[in-house]
Amino acid sequence: MAQWRQLIDDAYRGQVTEPIMNVDDSRGTHFDAIFLGGGSAGRFGAAVLRSLGGRALVLERWPFLGGSCPHQACVPHHLFSEAAKELDQAQALAGRLWYGKFDPAAASVLELVELFRGQRSGSHAHMNWQSAGQLDIEYIVNTEAIAADARTVRAAGRTFTADALVLCTGSCTAMPGIAGESLPGVFDYASFIEDLDYEPSRIVVIGGSKVAVEYASFYRATGTPTAIVSRGPMLSTGGPGRMDDDLRRFVIDGMRARDVELLEHSTVTRIAGRDRVEAVEITTPDGPRRIEADFVLIATGEKPNVEGFVEALPVARDADGFVAVNSRMQTSIPGVYAAGDLLGPPLEMFKSRRSGTTAARNIMGTDSEFHYADIPDFLHTTYEVCWAGLGEREARQAFGQVVTIQVPPPDLAPGETPLPMAEGSMIYGFTRPERTGFQKCVIDARSRRVVGVHHAGYGAKDAFQYLHYLISRPGGLTIDDLGDMNELYLSPDYFIGYARLRSGQAELTSM
Amino acid sequence: MAQWRQLIDDAYRGQVTEPIMNVDDSRGTHFDAIFLGGGSAGRFGAAVLRSLGGRALVLERWPFLGGSCPHQACVPHHLFSEAAKELDQAQALAGRLWYGKFDPAAASVLELVELFRGQRSGSHAHMNWQSAGQLDIEYIVNTEAIAADARTVRAAGRTFTADALVLCTGSCTAMPGIAGESLPGVFDYASFIEDLDYEPSRIVVIGGSKVAVEYASFYRATGTPTAIVSRGPMLSTGGPGRMDDDLRRFVIDGMRARDVELLEHSTVTRIAGRDRVEAVEITTPDGPRRIEADFVLIATGEKPNVEGFVEALPVARDADGFVAVNSRMQTSIPGVYAAGDLLGPPLEMFKSRRSGTTAARNIMGTDSEFHYADIPDFLHTTYEVCWAGLGEREARQAFGQVVTIQVPPPDLAPGETPLPMAEGSMIYGFTRPERTGFQKCVIDARSRRVVGVHHAGYGAKDAFQYLHYLISRPGGLTIDDLGDMNELYLSPDYFIGYARLRSGQAELTSM
Repeated sequence: MAQWRQLIDDAYRGQVTEPIMNVDDSRGTHFDAIFLGGGSAGRFGAAVLRSLGGRALVLERWPFLGGSCPHQACVPHHLFSEAAKELDQAQALAGRLWYGKFDPAAASVLELVELFRGQRSGSHAHMNWQSAGQLDIEYIVNTEAIAADARTVRAAGRTFTADALVLCTGSCTAMPGIAGESLPGVFDYASFIEDLDYEPSRIVVIGGSKVAVEYASFYRATGTPTAIVSRGPMLSTGGPGRMDDDLRRFVIDGMRARDVELLEHSTVTRIAGRDRVEAVEITTPDGPRRIEADFVLIATGEKPNVEGFVEALPVARDADGFVAVNSRMQTSIPGVYAAGDLLGPPLEMFKSRRSGTTAARNIMGTDSEFHYADIPDFLHTTYEVCWAGLGEREARQAFGQVVTIQVPPPDLAPGETPLPMAEGSMIYGFTRPERTGFQKCVIDARSRRVVGVHHAGYGAKDAFQYLHYLISRPGGLTIDDLGDMNELYLSPDYFIGYARLRSGQAELTSM
Repeated sequence: MAQWRQLIDDAYRGQVTEPIMNVDDSRGTHFDAIFLGGGSAGRFGAAVLRSLGGRALVLERWPFLGGSCPHQACVPHHLFSEAAKELDQAQALAGRLWYGKFDPAAASVLELVELFRGQRSGSHAHMNWQSAGQLDIEYIVNTEAIAADARTVRAAGRTFTADALVLCTGSCTAMPGIAGESLPGVFDYASFIEDLDYEPSRIVVIGGSKVAVEYASFYRATGTPTAIVSRGPMLSTGGPGRMDDDLRRFVIDGMRARDVELLEHSTVTRIAGRDRVEAVEITTPDGPRRIEADFVLIATGEKPNVEGFVEALPVARDADGFVAVNSRMQTSIPGVYAAGDLLGPPLEMFKSRRSGTTAARNIMGTDSEFHYADIPDFLHTTYEVCWAGLGEREARQAFGQVVTIQVPPPDLAPGETPLPMAEGSMIYGFTRPERTGFQKCVIDARSRRVVGVHHAGYGAKDAFQYLHYLISRPGGLTIDDLGDMNELYLSPDYFIGYARLRSGQAELTSM
């Protein structure tokens, strides 16, 4: 593992320029499938293809498998969001219990980025190690790969052929074309990780979706003044998962209470500065404004990475340029599949992985479909925020008669009860009860089925994977099924216990 | 809510001695069921009986419903365990990032007990409010209640009758009968909350099960030298849930690494002291030892509270005195049911609640059984530790051919990989990778069914409720089902993603 880390670090610094090969040359250069890109889609696809008895080759330009997630995206985001949670608590409890005075100078964005940059090859090494040892995948990393045709790829100075090709080259930020966006001090999520070399003192985040909310919450939690400029209302992007209105309100009110400046319905007209960013000029509903800033994060959306294949393989693409596939992950060119962020939003790990494995199964002759119209979802502020199924409003539209289980109950003022409390919100329950969280379970009163679950707090994200499965499977999950489960009390979600309180009711009522 | 808090606080201090009544006198004094005891068993039983159209009366000696959980047991334990986690991190990271020097003098056991004591009526008030308003339960709290016969109870100077009686008076510590156990400075979990008025400086915990581990981990995390004296191996009590051997090892090694002194296979011969505890004298496998201590916690087991009914209702009881019931919660006396901790171990919230609701359903004429031979389980150290189903060893005995998914993988040294990482272990992943956690999924290779899940880390406890349901239901959960779920990455448990890596395999192999 230590050798892998060293090799990856050296290669990433440019000290190893030759490709890093894990290929069994004795078996020739023909494969059942070649995965163009070694992120989660390629790696998981190759693993399953191998499991099904096929021979897979993964080609990756970075010196490691796993893609942008452990390098620039999910892993740093989770590190920063955990830091945000801890910093938020350190500020809220400053001078109480064992918490000392909060020193904003000690909380450094740069230090956390440097910590991540310095250690990220730990998980990269794990991916290379696991892919070779546990998953028996053949791969070449630290190499550019170019598709020559639907069965031929050139990489590492060699030519490889396959019965099928899976495109999984990912995506990157689509810069919005704002004047000044290329000034030093303007970053996206990737360059923020790669290039930051100073401590920001005033921050503007451009965008209103998850990435904007997550990074702004982190920056603010370090004590740095932070504004978000969003064209529409925050977190209104909709998409397949539907966040309940009350959950959204709890999340946004929580950000406001922590002095994140939220400028909704506002447009950036210019990023101003001479040698580097000095301010962001915006149009707000109240007129023009200029916000001083020495750091700007662009979080307005993604575009696909098509350079490695688009010339040889002009696959059909959607209006935003993302590759179009059917539910078997087949592109418009026979034998060519696509998977991962190349397919466009939602840019989520399970979609990358499952689209990769769906392609692999079809390539190996197992008919397999993957649909992602209904997905569980989450984001971080200083809370973990999770949702699956329908919000209350959407459920009323769909079912008419709907009951809800809500904690804190709708008729109490914030902080009037310390509930919900569980791991991560216990200390708040006894010191700052308005901060413990919010949860809502939405039930179709007629069928008694749970049709939506919504949670802001801590410790429920893992459960939402299974809750989503349970409420989405045929037959679904009724309030009575839920009430007959065995909760692990105090549970981060109170759904089981509260469902039990109502499970005998002939005419369900809300609580 | 504020009025409820004031009334509960006054009553608990003895300033309100009359019973606090929420009874509809216009409906007379006869009920479908009377619940003797207003803890979770009585409160949930009454709520469901009410849902089913019945009239329930709950009688409780404390001035609030909810029982020992929010008063002396689960809620303070969760508060202290969260403090333990935060304090552990503050020590591990002292002088790094925004963490200052760790000052053990600032971390006070007494201060946390006082914080809890001062604020606990917040959740008590919620219970009284919810029970009256949302659940429409009639109750009298702040009163002793005595069963006169199987249909008659006297409380608050009045006599109430019912078609059925549900005994749910709970349990308390069974003192082990050690010389010196009544010295000042010797506590159990209840008197520790009620009576502590000094800062302990050297602690001995007597017992080897969950409570011992949880409280010792908290004491140690405040910087206080702490020893555990256990007759057998730690956490070996077995019981329905089976903790995997490797999980147990990770947990115990983690406590040792944090300098909790673990004295296994050791017996206390005497608690020594003149006016108060000064030391604990024990016999160890290496001979006798004397451990200086100014605080001793007895955590050796429970006995039932039978005073309120045993004379009039001599129900059959087991060897330890706990009330014997069948799967419908019926005691040996017709019309008399029992529920909650009165039934003996496992003393878990879901068992209390479900035994109460099972009694209620049967009383209202719905045939209903509750079995708890197979349960999910958890405990806290500075980690959240959860398990459900079989450990690897038990699974091998049951199924022969077993595969496992384990993170970190069995062939890596502690800290060699930062995985698993997710919420709560991200900062450790980048600073102290040996601390991120441990997880194992046990699979019967032939049926491909998941038969056990085991986790030490953060954020998975809520999920284990649903995982237990999924693996225990008819048909169970196969590795292929698991691999087709949508994970919320980075997930606190890695089971879905890793199952997907193996889901195509004809002959499953471990990883």
